[in-house]
Amino acid sequence: MTTKTGRTAVEEILKRVAKDGRSALTAPEGRAVCEAYGIPTPQERLATSAEEAVAQAGELGLPVVLKIVSPDILHKTEAGGVLVGLGSEQEVADGYAKILANAKAYDASARITGVQVQQMLTSGQEVIIGAVTDPSFGKIVAFGLGGILVEVLKDVTFRLAPTSTEEALSMVDGIAAAEILNGVRGSEPVDKAALAEVVHRLSRLVTDFPQLAEVDLNPVLATGAGATAVDVRILVDPAAAEPVRFSQDEILAAMNRIMKPAAVAVIGASAEDGKIGNSVMKNLVNGGYAGEIYPINPKAAEILDRKAYPSIADVPGDVDVAVFAIPAKFVPAALEEAGEKGVAGAILIPSGFGETGNIELQNEVLAIARKHGVRILGPNIYGYYYTPENLSATFCTPYDVKGGVALSSQSGGIGMAILGFSRSAGMGVSAIVGVGNKADIDEDDLLTFFEHDDNTELVAMHLEDLKDGRAFAETAKRVSAKKPVVVLKAGRTSEGAKAAGSHTGALAGNDRVYDDILRQSGVIRAPGLNDLLEYARGVPKLPTPKGENVVIITGAGGSGVLLSDACVDNGLTLMRIPDDLDAAFREYIPPFGAAGNPVDITGGEPPSTYRNTIALGLSDDRIHSLVLGYWHTIVTPPMVFAELVVDVVEEFRRKGVHKPVVASLSGDVEVEQASEHLYAHGVVAYPYTTEKPVAVLGAKYRWARSAGLLP
Amino acid sequence: MTTKTGRTAVEEILKRVAKDGRSALTAPEGRAVCEAYGIPTPQERLATSAEEAVAQAGELGLPVVLKIVSPDILHKTEAGGVLVGLGSEQEVADGYAKILANAKAYDASARITGVQVQQMLTSGQEVIIGAVTDPSFGKIVAFGLGGILVEVLKDVTFRLAPTSTEEALSMVDGIAAAEILNGVRGSEPVDKAALAEVVHRLSRLVTDFPQLAEVDLNPVLATGAGATAVDVRILVDPAAAEPVRFSQDEILAAMNRIMKPAAVAVIGASAEDGKIGNSVMKNLVNGGYAGEIYPINPKAAEILDRKAYPSIADVPGDVDVAVFAIPAKFVPAALEEAGEKGVAGAILIPSGFGETGNIELQNEVLAIARKHGVRILGPNIYGYYYTPENLSATFCTPYDVKGGVALSSQSGGIGMAILGFSRSAGMGVSAIVGVGNKADIDEDDLLTFFEHDDNTELVAMHLEDLKDGRAFAETAKRVSAKKPVVVLKAGRTSEGAKAAGSHTGALAGNDRVYDDILRQSGVIRAPGLNDLLEYARGVPKLPTPKGENVVIITGAGGSGVLLSDACVDNGLTLMRIPDDLDAAFREYIPPFGAAGNPVDITGGEPPSTYRNTIALGLSDDRIHSLVLGYWHTIVTPPMVFAELVVDVVEEFRRKGVHKPVVASLSGDVEVEQASEHLYAHGVVAYPYTTEKPVAVLGAKYRWARSAGLLP
Repeated sequence: MTTKTGRTAVEEILKRVAKDGRSALTAPEGRAVCEAYGIPTPQERLATSAEEAVAQAGELGLPVVLKIVSPDILHKTEAGGVLVGLGSEQEVADGYAKILANAKAYDASARITGVQVQQMLTSGQEVIIGAVTDPSFGKIVAFGLGGILVEVLKDVTFRLAPTSTEEALSMVDGIAAAEILNGVRGSEPVDKAALAEVVHRLSRLVTDFPQLAEVDLNPVLATGAGATAVDVRILVDPAAAEPVRFSQDEILAAMNRIMKPAAVAVIGASAEDGKIGNSVMKNLVNGGYAGEIYPINPKAAEILDRKAYPSIADVPGDVDVAVFAIPAKFVPAALEEAGEKGVAGAILIPSGFGETGNIELQNEVLAIARKHGVRILGPNIYGYYYTPENLSATFCTPYDVKGGVALSSQSGGIGMAILGFSRSAGMGVSAIVGVGNKADIDEDDLLTFFEHDDNTELVAMHLEDLKDGRAFAETAKRVSAKKPVVVLKAGRTSEGAKAAGSHTGALAGNDRVYDDILRQSGVIRAPGLNDLLEYARGVPKLPTPKGENVVIITGAGGSGVLLSDACVDNGLTLMRIPDDLDAAFREYIPPFGAAGNPVDITGGEPPSTYRNTIALGLSDDRIHSLVLGYWHTIVTPPMVFAELVVDVVEEFRRKGVHKPVVASLSGDVEVEQASEHLYAHGVVAYPYTTEKPVAVLGAKYRWARSAGLLP
Repeated sequence: MTTKTGRTAVEEILKRVAKDGRSALTAPEGRAVCEAYGIPTPQERLATSAEEAVAQAGELGLPVVLKIVSPDILHKTEAGGVLVGLGSEQEVADGYAKILANAKAYDASARITGVQVQQMLTSGQEVIIGAVTDPSFGKIVAFGLGGILVEVLKDVTFRLAPTSTEEALSMVDGIAAAEILNGVRGSEPVDKAALAEVVHRLSRLVTDFPQLAEVDLNPVLATGAGATAVDVRILVDPAAAEPVRFSQDEILAAMNRIMKPAAVAVIGASAEDGKIGNSVMKNLVNGGYAGEIYPINPKAAEILDRKAYPSIADVPGDVDVAVFAIPAKFVPAALEEAGEKGVAGAILIPSGFGETGNIELQNEVLAIARKHGVRILGPNIYGYYYTPENLSATFCTPYDVKGGVALSSQSGGIGMAILGFSRSAGMGVSAIVGVGNKADIDEDDLLTFFEHDDNTELVAMHLEDLKDGRAFAETAKRVSAKKPVVVLKAGRTSEGAKAAGSHTGALAGNDRVYDDILRQSGVIRAPGLNDLLEYARGVPKLPTPKGENVVIITGAGGSGVLLSDACVDNGLTLMRIPDDLDAAFREYIPPFGAAGNPVDITGGEPPSTYRNTIALGLSDDRIHSLVLGYWHTIVTPPMVFAELVVDVVEEFRRKGVHKPVVASLSGDVEVEQASEHLYAHGVVAYPYTTEKPVAVLGAKYRWARSAGLLP
């Protein structure tokens, strides 16, 4: 999109700035950079006579700004060298004379090149468009409404640069006050395509020139005819550097050996109960891992009936993974040996690295790993599980309920909560991975593995920060097109804007950027830990819906209202029931029941009413998902309800009808067992809550939409 | 605040409007009404010469508006009789002449009274102030920023009228964009007191004159010097009526007899299993109710060993409560008899009234009740429980876990969820009441009873609408100063603004009004059913905090981050730890642990580290609440943690130190039992979630603040 000339023009300006050792561009330089990338700025001409100035003002359109141009006058305003708002030919002619007179009075010897005649934009909607360099995401662009809206209400949105024009348009339409751009109170709609084009071009500019650390186009004036960057402020930082990345193939090759190792060495294996090296050995052995297990311990001949080796170098065969259960200070030497042995992964359980301030040791260990081509998991972790290999390489307890959910956590505490919740709920898991300090392997490495792992249907991740947010966003976007990726981002509540040199920088509060970019990357963001776990458990249970039409069928009118609230809260669409369908539902419900949506079958109904209405909901192609509200009565007790629902849902599954069905059960304690029965049979059901089942359905929909699976 | 003259002036205007049969006031009438209540409008004078007009314009300040005043010219603008923006003496003088000429040209015979010279306000912040008549809340006032902010972002807030100046100021400060009023981008701060005064005066106006159905002051221009209502639009509705209310004494007298009856009659009592009249009898008898129970059934001599009576009239003694377990159509006749017998309450279990469209029958029944001074609970309910009397007047199952939580639900389904949750969690309950169609008794009647009920510590209510929102808000405000009132308002998601004749009316979307007014009334609003139940269970367990300083003590750094997020989400203040306290915490934690807040004691610590840091948190007076994060380790297993926490908390309780302590437990399944142990001993604890314990603490704080218990 940018001509070679454009790039060259920017290069030359930046060379000059670099030569001067400046960290900011002048206003004319900034405008020139914008113009080079096709971002409109106010037009200007150079006049050398009053007549010429008048003629040029006529071309540009009145009013105009006049500015003295002189190599000897740096402070134009002080010199009386700037006149704004000249609205008639006469004013322009007079102004020309006045500026020259002022300049002479200011410095009689100043050389006068002429007078700049500049377009003065007086109308249009103010917006701010900017770009900053985020420590995790790299170049990001921002869009918001100018003035008080962005200053007071922080109504601004972010995307990774470069940004396609389509993505840029989604920013323009994505702010809270977007309606203003469509024209309110009789004002004309602005040219949103022109705004998107500015965003797009700015995103290309900062991508092409990473040293452009921060760019503020503030304000950009948008009218029905286009968008013009009135003020341009550009800060440069020559040190801007891109992170080192592995290729997808490199990541996959290493992760495959780590997650599906043929042989594991335990460095610091111990026969003594209570030692971490003992727990790791026990979990490997008792977990049923079928590969080779090599205890490494110079002081033991045998540990848990396995021959022990003084050093990993002494192990006869190849080793894929070395689990380190030794104090931090001994890690470098042992890692050298493991590296020489050719392990793919070093699982660094010990703490005492970056998290305690010992960053040198962590860097030293990373350097050793890089030298040998070893990938590090950790340090400061509980280890990891991969159930398809019966691999529990951890000091916690083994986990053996196999299933499609892969989970990771940055914190050990959260890892233990994952383990406990999974066991308690009987959640089928493919992997649980602690990433800890993320000295090396991080979430995008894991995502790349899970993407290709047929044992994994959904990935759920707890994270506090992203080492390389851009790599994560790109990987997550790719993976979430195939499998749901649920993310709990801890540390959501930013403690205020970062110190920044630009307006855009000040707006780029951490969580706002994460929120916008994670959403763009297609991940399902969980608002809390319990949501992460419930989404992980429930989303894979539900078939992917084929459309947006959700129907609530409820025995309790009150549950119907709350379920409707929950649907709206979760971005679900309550289907408008067509007349024929309404009539069909009415066939089954009492005359005082309510069809429409929710379908209120009323409280005193027998099992057949639930059955008939649910069967209708499953059989009608226009309905895509069902939300059931159950009300405990003597006529239809909880387990009778649960069994009939499972029965009818399974009947339709056998016919090839797969629709998500979730249920909220209101009743005495028997509804707990009924909920479990439903859940076990693929109906995501909870007692005493109308929110949770709908939240899980909402998560499924968010994923299906972002993966492009819904029309 | 309003002079007698002011009221009289408004009365006269409204008389004229009523006489004309108009539903709207003219602009001058609207301005006059405002002026009568001290609401500033643009000043104006009547000039009869150009010189006079110039002099008056000088007094008012330029620019001004000129308008012809003639009893013969109704359409001033058409007649060329309005000139705006006259900015100099010359323009005013010329304008005067021009207007007269225009008027003559328009109608040569028109009588000219003179020319109105009106202040033309050109600067200031636009705001909208209005009043509408809400079907549930009656007169409410609205405040928002004018222009696009209110139109696009719906940034508006509501209060019940009349509104004190203090409440009005809380509106001015309470909108999202309030910062704008403090002056941004170099603009001067506006006179917020003047704005609050306008709100306050408008609220008095509509209270004094209920027929003022909707008032829009839009815009009001606010400057540093005051606030002026530039445009005034007033709609009248002479039919506006106030609801009938019982006095507090009347409510209490009736509710005391209903909740603590000496004798209960069951109309439609049955010996036949599966009948509602049988279930009610069984629950009364088996629930252990010690008062008289009179089965009423013309066809039985005895039911459940109790003598049955053909009619309630035949019962020998007094009867306080009649529970109706008969079809709807038989209710009127039976209610007549019960009324003649002098019952205080008629518990109408049957459905078939308003909820099925049979509003006539419901009105008929209500009329009978009113005639006899009987209060109706229902119809269309499961009944009610009052555990201090062992009273289970319901067709559900008895409930006997006594405690301080009173609950009500508008829906039977939700009532069953309350019952099941309570039983499952072992929640101590004083009452569970179904209010159903609320033909008569509603939430404010219940609140009034629970307010004076020593057995009730907290009230939790599920409601879908409020028959008399104003009575509820007033009662809730009074009650919540003494006891927490938790409300789940179902049907939160308004389907769009109501049809309305004014701007303010259009903004008064149902949920927005509910939200603002419920918050003002001091109730804790639960976002969902499960929150309602968890708040009800947990809030009374926690002592009332003595201040805002919350400290997190955690074994897992990851939990600490999530708990911090949850604190911010729930409006809690993470204490800034003073240096001496920081040093004191550091005494107990490893050198690589983090003091500050969260206090991160790190994962591998023995029980003593938890104990010492928790004891420090309890002993230091500057700390008001503790949030604990537990991480399951071999060194401090779950039950060891739970027992030590209970031990240290109880030790401090014995010393008179009562602080709220909540806990989030991360770990394997043993943390479930540990959480239960903690909860049973007054530490609100949950496994696998960092959100719930903090949400309950947040609910406690919201209540403590609104009850004025925090400094």
